[in-house]
Amino acid sequence: MRPFIHDDFLLRSEMARRLYHGVAEGLPIIDFHNHLDAGDLADDRVYENLARLWVLNDPYKHRAMRIAGVPERFITGDASDGEKFDAWAATVPQTLGNPLFHWTALELKRYFGIDELLSSESAGPIWDKCNAMLRDPSYSARGLIGRSSVECLCTSDRPGDDLAAHARLAGSPITRWPLSAASGADKNIRVTRVLPSLRVDGVDGDEAGAVVGCLDHFERMGCRLADHAVTAFDSGALRVLGREYGRRGWILQLHIGAQRETSTRLRALAGPAGGYATIGDRCDIAGLCRFLDDLERDGCLPRTVLYPLNPADYAALATLTGSFAEDGVRGKIQLGPAWWYNDHALGIRQHLDALAHHGLLSAFIGMTTDSRSPLSMVRHEYFRRVLCDGWGEKVERGEMPGDEGMVGELVRAVCHGNAREWSADRPRAAMCEPTKFSRQPCQ
Amino acid sequence: MRPFIHDDFLLRSEMARRLYHGVAEGLPIIDFHNHLDAGDLADDRVYENLARLWVLNDPYKHRAMRIAGVPERFITGDASDGEKFDAWAATVPQTLGNPLFHWTALELKRYFGIDELLSSESAGPIWDKCNAMLRDPSYSARGLIGRSSVECLCTSDRPGDDLAAHARLAGSPITRWPLSAASGADKNIRVTRVLPSLRVDGVDGDEAGAVVGCLDHFERMGCRLADHAVTAFDSGALRVLGREYGRRGWILQLHIGAQRETSTRLRALAGPAGGYATIGDRCDIAGLCRFLDDLERDGCLPRTVLYPLNPADYAALATLTGSFAEDGVRGKIQLGPAWWYNDHALGIRQHLDALAHHGLLSAFIGMTTDSRSPLSMVRHEYFRRVLCDGWGEKVERGEMPGDEGMVGELVRAVCHGNAREWSADRPRAAMCEPTKFSRQPCQ
Amino acid sequence: MRPFIHDDFLLRSEMARRLYHGVAEGLPIIDFHNHLDAGDLADDRVYENLARLWVLNDPYKHRAMRIAGVPERFITGDASDGEKFDAWAATVPQTLGNPLFHWTALELKRYFGIDELLSSESAGPIWDKCNAMLRDPSYSARGLIGRSSVECLCTSDRPGDDLAAHARLAGSPITRWPLSAASGADKNIRVTRVLPSLRVDGVDGDEAGAVVGCLDHFERMGCRLADHAVTAFDSGALRVLGREYGRRGWILQLHIGAQRETSTRLRALAGPAGGYATIGDRCDIAGLCRFLDDLERDGCLPRTVLYPLNPADYAALATLTGSFAEDGVRGKIQLGPAWWYNDHALGIRQHLDALAHHGLLSAFIGMTTDSRSPLSMVRHEYFRRVLCDGWGEKVERGEMPGDEGMVGELVRAVCHGNAREWSADRPRAAMCEPTKFSRQPCQ
Repeated sequence: MRPFIHDDFLLRSEMARRLYHGVAEGLPIIDFHNHLDAGDLADDRVYENLARLWVLNDPYKHRAMRIAGVPERFITGDASDGEKFDAWAATVPQTLGNPLFHWTALELKRYFGIDELLSSESAGPIWDKCNAMLRDPSYSARGLIGRSSVECLCTSDRPGDDLAAHARLAGSPITRWPLSAASGADKNIRVTRVLPSLRVDGVDGDEAGAVVGCLDHFERMGCRLADHAVTAFDSGALRVLGREYGRRGWILQLHIGAQRETSTRLRALAGPAGGYATIGDRCDIAGLCRFLDDLERDGCLPRTVLYPLNPADYAALATLTGSFAEDGVRGKIQLGPAWWYNDHALGIRQHLDALAHHGLLSAFIGMTTDSRSPLSMVRHEYFRRVLCDGWGEKVERGEMPGDEGMVGELVRAVCHGNAREWSADRPRAAMCEPTKFSRQPCQ
Repeated sequence: MRPFIHDDFLLRSEMARRLYHGVAEGLPIIDFHNHLDAGDLADDRVYENLARLWVLNDPYKHRAMRIAGVPERFITGDASDGEKFDAWAATVPQTLGNPLFHWTALELKRYFGIDELLSSESAGPIWDKCNAMLRDPSYSARGLIGRSSVECLCTSDRPGDDLAAHARLAGSPITRWPLSAASGADKNIRVTRVLPSLRVDGVDGDEAGAVVGCLDHFERMGCRLADHAVTAFDSGALRVLGREYGRRGWILQLHIGAQRETSTRLRALAGPAGGYATIGDRCDIAGLCRFLDDLERDGCLPRTVLYPLNPADYAALATLTGSFAEDGVRGKIQLGPAWWYNDHALGIRQHLDALAHHGLLSAFIGMTTDSRSPLSMVRHEYFRRVLCDGWGEKVERGEMPGDEGMVGELVRAVCHGNAREWSADRPRAAMCEPTKFSRQPCQ
Repeated sequence: MRPFIHDDFLLRSEMARRLYHGVAEGLPIIDFHNHLDAGDLADDRVYENLARLWVLNDPYKHRAMRIAGVPERFITGDASDGEKFDAWAATVPQTLGNPLFHWTALELKRYFGIDELLSSESAGPIWDKCNAMLRDPSYSARGLIGRSSVECLCTSDRPGDDLAAHARLAGSPITRWPLSAASGADKNIRVTRVLPSLRVDGVDGDEAGAVVGCLDHFERMGCRLADHAVTAFDSGALRVLGREYGRRGWILQLHIGAQRETSTRLRALAGPAGGYATIGDRCDIAGLCRFLDDLERDGCLPRTVLYPLNPADYAALATLTGSFAEDGVRGKIQLGPAWWYNDHALGIRQHLDALAHHGLLSAFIGMTTDSRSPLSMVRHEYFRRVLCDGWGEKVERGEMPGDEGMVGELVRAVCHGNAREWSADRPRAAMCEPTKFSRQPCQ
């Protein structure tokens, strides 16, 4: 019997298979927003076992185990690594229909060559096999990233970070090789660039100056991206920092609409990133427009990526990509890829459909993992399969011309070309005056 | 020509048919929330004609007739039963695409063996045939429920109700027989348990004590479920009662987001449940989280079922099922089945997709009718067909393993197993202190 | 190779093809809300070139060009007509997935017989061919409308307009001929009625009287439709005018939820209708219900068409079509067709599905273009293809009886019959008292 993950997984039509295998599969990855630990990469961390690599630090898995009623001892408590892995393995069959089921199968297949589905029955052999492989030096943090054909990845770093890990990585870059042997373009071994990106949370107006003072250091280390988790757009700090990003030609990412205050009990147990957050109320569109307009009127509006967490906002924010523009800049306002709880086949399809119908999909900068795990790079494969399947289907339905070149160009742009174009440096915005904080030292 | 309702109605793939006929079809029904009249069941009401059973008391049909422009005289006015039935029959072809079209065909087929579609042309013979059958004792209220293979049903009862009808039903239970002769598990004739559930509307903080006083009586009569229609979550009464439900191991149902204030004119004509309500603004997610968190912090959070009326809330509330948890409890927070105006093929699919992708479908407690009519039990069949069709399709698309056992287990859990598991008694929550109202008498 | 736009474009099933070619295709168009220039029609404007007809005045195209990074000089600036056309042609391949791609191909095919897809490569020959055809007298404004088989169209006119252009059009009507030679019903040459409709924006309570004073003149000129762009429903002017419309038997259209304040810069460049608006926050459903109820209580509620811009509102407002009713009036409250940024295959499907499942699709008054361009009449063809495809698919899936007559009747009603029924005059509402403004002169 054909294994669950096979060459044509999720690719239902001939056109889908041609788009994926002929175009998308061999393209390198630009993962412009994730939470990988730069220290792990610089130190080339070795993982003691599969639980340490894959379960103990994964809030998605923890969340599923909690819904399944797994006692907290086996999630964040004092159970052994092996017990925690077993608890996860027992939960996997219950995730049928959830992206975790697909991710699990895909990660075991791509990194460990395992076809068998994880469950309580298969847990023992899989635990043994993977742990043996993790002892191989090519399964270190750098090895795992290297085998994913990543051209560039951007971690999330706090303003005060000295970025020493990034400096070490710049001096000793990760060797990468192509994910697919079929890819001609990347046959030669290359390196993965690991760049910092600036993550700002909960800064008020008075503290904005201190963050501004850190931008020069981040910029010297290759950072051109910032991101803010926002619930309201009238923040003075956001305006000050937005102007600075615009002036410097940086990119601003706005993560919108997470409801992080849910269970006080789980927050105490699992920490602030513990997987118990939920999708919050919808985006304040009028407030967002005022914010963007304020910056634009001063000539300081940066390229901006909007990540709404509530999919009910997709149509509105996909439309908003046409509300601000700049001569010569393709897709100045972006609807970012399906984020967090929407990063699954349904969410990706909803996002792509909304963007295509309400904006220009051809200008979309594509997928990013937003993940803590090096194994999550397979989500690019997942995204590309869903994209090629969906656009292949549109060709089959007669909604697109059956012109493989034309649709292939769209796929190539979305999977790689647009993100690469965005990664090129832009000059500072001449019209945008420095703020009073522009020369403040980093604290 | 094959009749519209046939064995494989809505089942498009081979896997869908195997899941439905092999697993779902023969499972008994647990209808944990409806508005059946316990008095009718205890009295074993006989229906004078099809209009009395099926039209005069059905706000869904009334609503469709109003949209179609049928004069109110034929809906709630002084027209005869036959005239009202004719008005409904003339409306049925205009409901094409609405669940009423499917429900109508399904109910006529399952209970009366009628293949012909209802319309003005067929109205006369169908009226005569059904009225003749209704004279048979097996078509009384108990007979109709009995032939639907209902294991357990929970009515909605007001706090002051003496539950005398339930007492009579406990003494003389409804005999049931299996819906499908193919079902092996339920070949022996069994009984249908009819339990009360507590419905609380518009109680303020001062009145909460009176409701608390009624809980002991309800509990003695087998009630373990309460439900509240809510528009805001900061109500003191909701907090007091929520704590009590949690302490007792009951289940709390929250019906969220109905806009009941629409036409004053129709409210006067048709009463408070007259079918003119609509879907209201979205759920206040932050407020809901605060409410659940307040109870959890005191160790008093009951198992909770959320029924949002606005489908734009599905993704958010499906995600919220992972925001609170309890060791050993599967699916402590539930996204209840597609409710009221969403109880149709599209709504069911949207609900199941949201829950599967944002939560764990395998923990879902499944369908309930929320209906006043004994004939509505076919909506369980409808739900099961849509479920099996959707999950069969996912197997065909390669999104699920083609493992009939694995997918069948999911179907079995959602159609029956999870609801049965939830119907088992839970001990009182030891950590949750009684409120000051806990020993107040029922008024 | 079959051209992209062919006879069965978007029609995937046999039933879809039979519904479209057998029923929908030959029906005349009633375009009850658009922004065509009545002066252009009265003057029988001749278009100097394709850019003047098709590009310079089209905010949808401008918006796509802005997202693609086209400099503003080629959109609203001092570039030549030919340069602007070339900029648009270069953008077209980037609109793959957006309705502009379909509309472009469909308009070039239907009006100019062009099969080739527009792009930089094909721009030159297409420019030349179309410009040559535009010199033919049958390609004037009247000629273009005439060849679209339009039975009636309603322009948007401000309260103070003298409607002189409409008077001239009434004296010298547009000759029309059938779009499809296959249509039997319309083989004889007929005329297109061009009627005014009243567009009211930003009127406050004090100014409402002046608008009321204009209603008699509009009514004499054949107007029975008004529309308001609203963000809030507590406006005194809306109540005064709504009562007047109800009293006169007019129809009220409410365009809900546009966010027009986005980029100040683009507003200055492109004017108030410049394509930079976006989808705003969701509809205030409670406020809308209060407004409708207030009018109904006085016997003054007009037939009302709701156009929400945010598709997250479709389910709620489709349900609201059952919340108010009037004896003998089919579909008194309408969910208007997918509007503006939702006027594409996805939006049309979402709208039709919401309306069918939450209301009665059979009572729907159907498509209107809301466009400034005479070529946009092909959007009726587009809508009809999507409708027939979707309903054909439902038959194929077994969700509808395979009764071509029954489904065909639905298609006929939605594409033409219901709008024609609504266009018949209704008597004034006897119960509704005139307002104090009812006899005020038009200013």
